[in-house]
Amino acid sequence: MPISLGELATRFGCELIGDPDTVVSGVSSLQDAGPESLTFLSSSAYAKQLPQTKAGAVILRASDAESCPVAALVSSDPYSTYARMAAAVCPVAPVEPGIHSSAVVAASADIAESASLGPHVVVGERTRIGERVSIGPGCIIGNDCVIGDDSRLIANVTFVKRVRIGVRGVFHPGLVVGADGFGNAMTPDGWVKVPQVGGVRIGDDVEIGANTTIDCGAIGDTVIDNGVRIDNLCQIAHNVHIGEHTALAAMSGIAGSATIGKRCMFAGQGGTVGHISVCDDVIVAAKSFLSKDVTEAGTYGSSFPAVPAKSWAKQLARFRRLANLNERVKKLEK
Amino acid sequence: MPISLGELATRFGCELIGDPDTVVSGVSSLQDAGPESLTFLSSSAYAKQLPQTKAGAVILRASDAESCPVAALVSSDPYSTYARMAAAVCPVAPVEPGIHSSAVVAASADIAESASLGPHVVVGERTRIGERVSIGPGCIIGNDCVIGDDSRLIANVTFVKRVRIGVRGVFHPGLVVGADGFGNAMTPDGWVKVPQVGGVRIGDDVEIGANTTIDCGAIGDTVIDNGVRIDNLCQIAHNVHIGEHTALAAMSGIAGSATIGKRCMFAGQGGTVGHISVCDDVIVAAKSFLSKDVTEAGTYGSSFPAVPAKSWAKQLARFRRLANLNERVKKLEK
Amino acid sequence: MPISLGELATRFGCELIGDPDTVVSGVSSLQDAGPESLTFLSSSAYAKQLPQTKAGAVILRASDAESCPVAALVSSDPYSTYARMAAAVCPVAPVEPGIHSSAVVAASADIAESASLGPHVVVGERTRIGERVSIGPGCIIGNDCVIGDDSRLIANVTFVKRVRIGVRGVFHPGLVVGADGFGNAMTPDGWVKVPQVGGVRIGDDVEIGANTTIDCGAIGDTVIDNGVRIDNLCQIAHNVHIGEHTALAAMSGIAGSATIGKRCMFAGQGGTVGHISVCDDVIVAAKSFLSKDVTEAGTYGSSFPAVPAKSWAKQLARFRRLANLNERVKKLEK
Repeated sequence: MPISLGELATRFGCELIGDPDTVVSGVSSLQDAGPESLTFLSSSAYAKQLPQTKAGAVILRASDAESCPVAALVSSDPYSTYARMAAAVCPVAPVEPGIHSSAVVAASADIAESASLGPHVVVGERTRIGERVSIGPGCIIGNDCVIGDDSRLIANVTFVKRVRIGVRGVFHPGLVVGADGFGNAMTPDGWVKVPQVGGVRIGDDVEIGANTTIDCGAIGDTVIDNGVRIDNLCQIAHNVHIGEHTALAAMSGIAGSATIGKRCMFAGQGGTVGHISVCDDVIVAAKSFLSKDVTEAGTYGSSFPAVPAKSWAKQLARFRRLANLNERVKKLEK
Repeated sequence: MPISLGELATRFGCELIGDPDTVVSGVSSLQDAGPESLTFLSSSAYAKQLPQTKAGAVILRASDAESCPVAALVSSDPYSTYARMAAAVCPVAPVEPGIHSSAVVAASADIAESASLGPHVVVGERTRIGERVSIGPGCIIGNDCVIGDDSRLIANVTFVKRVRIGVRGVFHPGLVVGADGFGNAMTPDGWVKVPQVGGVRIGDDVEIGANTTIDCGAIGDTVIDNGVRIDNLCQIAHNVHIGEHTALAAMSGIAGSATIGKRCMFAGQGGTVGHISVCDDVIVAAKSFLSKDVTEAGTYGSSFPAVPAKSWAKQLARFRRLANLNERVKKLEK
Repeated sequence: MPISLGELATRFGCELIGDPDTVVSGVSSLQDAGPESLTFLSSSAYAKQLPQTKAGAVILRASDAESCPVAALVSSDPYSTYARMAAAVCPVAPVEPGIHSSAVVAASADIAESASLGPHVVVGERTRIGERVSIGPGCIIGNDCVIGDDSRLIANVTFVKRVRIGVRGVFHPGLVVGADGFGNAMTPDGWVKVPQVGGVRIGDDVEIGANTTIDCGAIGDTVIDNGVRIDNLCQIAHNVHIGEHTALAAMSGIAGSATIGKRCMFAGQGGTVGHISVCDDVIVAAKSFLSKDVTEAGTYGSSFPAVPAKSWAKQLARFRRLANLNERVKKLEK
């Protein structure tokens, strides 16, 4: 959507160095941007591309303004300013109200008139769909769910049962919320399934990625608080509680009944064991996992970056001979 | 479903301490239970909540009965007794026979009259659906599949082809069974696909989680035996064989042609390499993987719990200097 | 499909030892093959089964021909020859052109007459579907996608938007391509979503597994080059570039903006951090991850195979006392 730099500067509270009537209609990278594009400079790694940029305008820090050959929008945090301006320049298509003729909606469901239900959508009994909600093609919303206003289920999302979502959420394809948790009791005759009777409560402004799974509670709810971000292929087990604004990168797994604090960040393929409590502001490095309560904010890690396989084989051998090395030092000490 | 404590005690063989005419109609936690709820005490971690509980009845060990302020159902294994009683109190909704008008069923498919096919279901050629089977919305069952009596596919499950399932199975959304395995032959012109012509055989009383993948065999079948439990986001590669009552927690991966014994347990993000054989009663710890045959029952592990990142950086440096440390000890020994 | 050994030998350039008029109509393992089956001997681990085989013909190396009790097709690379011959004996069913009555196709979509769209398929605006393309049941192809000739989407595949696929691709159920990448800017009010405006470009002859996720670019495209093979449950983040003929085994994750060279191979549960560059011909071992640029071809690893848990506990304790051991050696040196 074409917007003038003057309007962007006013709406998002930036200083504009350049012509307020210049119009941008898309976003691009510093390198590829043409005069119709808005771009940004946030990381110093890209600073050398600034003098050559052909963008319509660059969002940047005051200290970079001098090197900018085109219009500049000055911000103390160019990346978040870019995020907001890009959403204005490339807005999400407005929801077209209506229920597609192939959608199957239970008689007791309550669908706002302003909501959109796409092809092949299924909505279960007693489920409530709020104002301006967009339920994309192939989504299945089971019984007793609540979808808050302005939330968007892109496509092929499954909310199994008893899933309550706040407002302005974004849910990507293949996401499954509210399936039974992994509850089994061992008996002499094998596993007996433990009924999973809880639900899932998800706050406002939450975004959850493709093919992620969030199980319903065994008893009581699994809870995802406001502002949480979960990437693709993550697992949130039954009765987990994830605090506000916590972010989980792809392939993270949080085991059953773990409680994660606010503003935590998990890098890829990380996670926690079950039944632990993690305080606010904890960062977990890639491929690392927490095995016990964490009571102090900070960064935690336990992963080994790959090295050439021959070196690794020798290193593993040395590691396995640690007991021997220890004995030899003991002997020397005597 | 309301049931009297007397009936529960009789049906499940428990001693009842309390009024047999008291009725419970739901389940809850010790802490949150009201007089209409059944609850249980299994782990001593929750014993301190017992004296305050307001539950209708508590399933517990004889040794805990004295501290129970309400009716008690005495069991030597309260958790499995709870699993069975909860299934009686909160039964799965009975299957409503019938084929939804939007379902697409191949002419040669054989669907039992007592089965239920939900909206937008697709059933392929020569596929047989047994008595009281429930195929939830959006499920796709390809050609040449067999679904045993009383099995339930919750929603959006895909059985690609040649998938044979036993009785009383439960299959969660996003599960994909019978897709081609990862079979590729390298040639000077790049990879050539190896046709995957086998199927998948799954036994009775198996439950498989959301977004898990189980590939068909390359030649011959991938096999999951009776009573197996597989959690969300697991990968079972082609020609794997998983023995009875084995359980895999979320994000476990079993590589091609591995054979896993009976009653094994894999914690989260664990797995095995391909082409190995693992005996019965093996437990694999979280984030650990087996790299060779295991012939002795027991617990196996290889993971590093996360520690503060600064300590980890130092620890990694020390680990990398093991060769140097070894040399220094050798020098001292001389 | 029945084919004579003579035709196979001629078509695929093998020497035939045996009757050219013998006909095979299926494939099987050395052990299970009957006279109607073609099989192969590639790994010496199976050589002892050769003298007993009852197959119609065995594809094998010249050096194994003597021990073969039945017809032999001689190849210097029996596995890739098997792959090609098996595709001839067990061909993929030809595409039956036509659009199922339950499919929902946007007015501006362009579908080749020879393409097949199955039940409950959805095709978005301006999307082009090429000749002989097969779109299986439940697939959702969003706006502005291009599907090249002879590609096959098996079932329940989701291409969200701006996904362009080359020719002869194979895409398995649950795959999600083109969902928004994990782009978030932290602000004092929590995360702000960074619009993801790029697309995904996938080359020719690419096969991608079940429940894998490939995000669209943040700005610019995520790119998968010709001949790439990606297994189940893998994550390819925004703006990743994967070079020709690279293969990723199940549960591998490539973080944002990483560039992977040609002919690389990742074993299961491996991956890379973001923003790194990996040269051609790099192999990454199971459960290992690359944390920085790799400029030299070869095998890399960093994983610890599981050992008995008691040994591991001791080993972990020794590992944690490395600083102490180091101090003791220092003291001895003084």
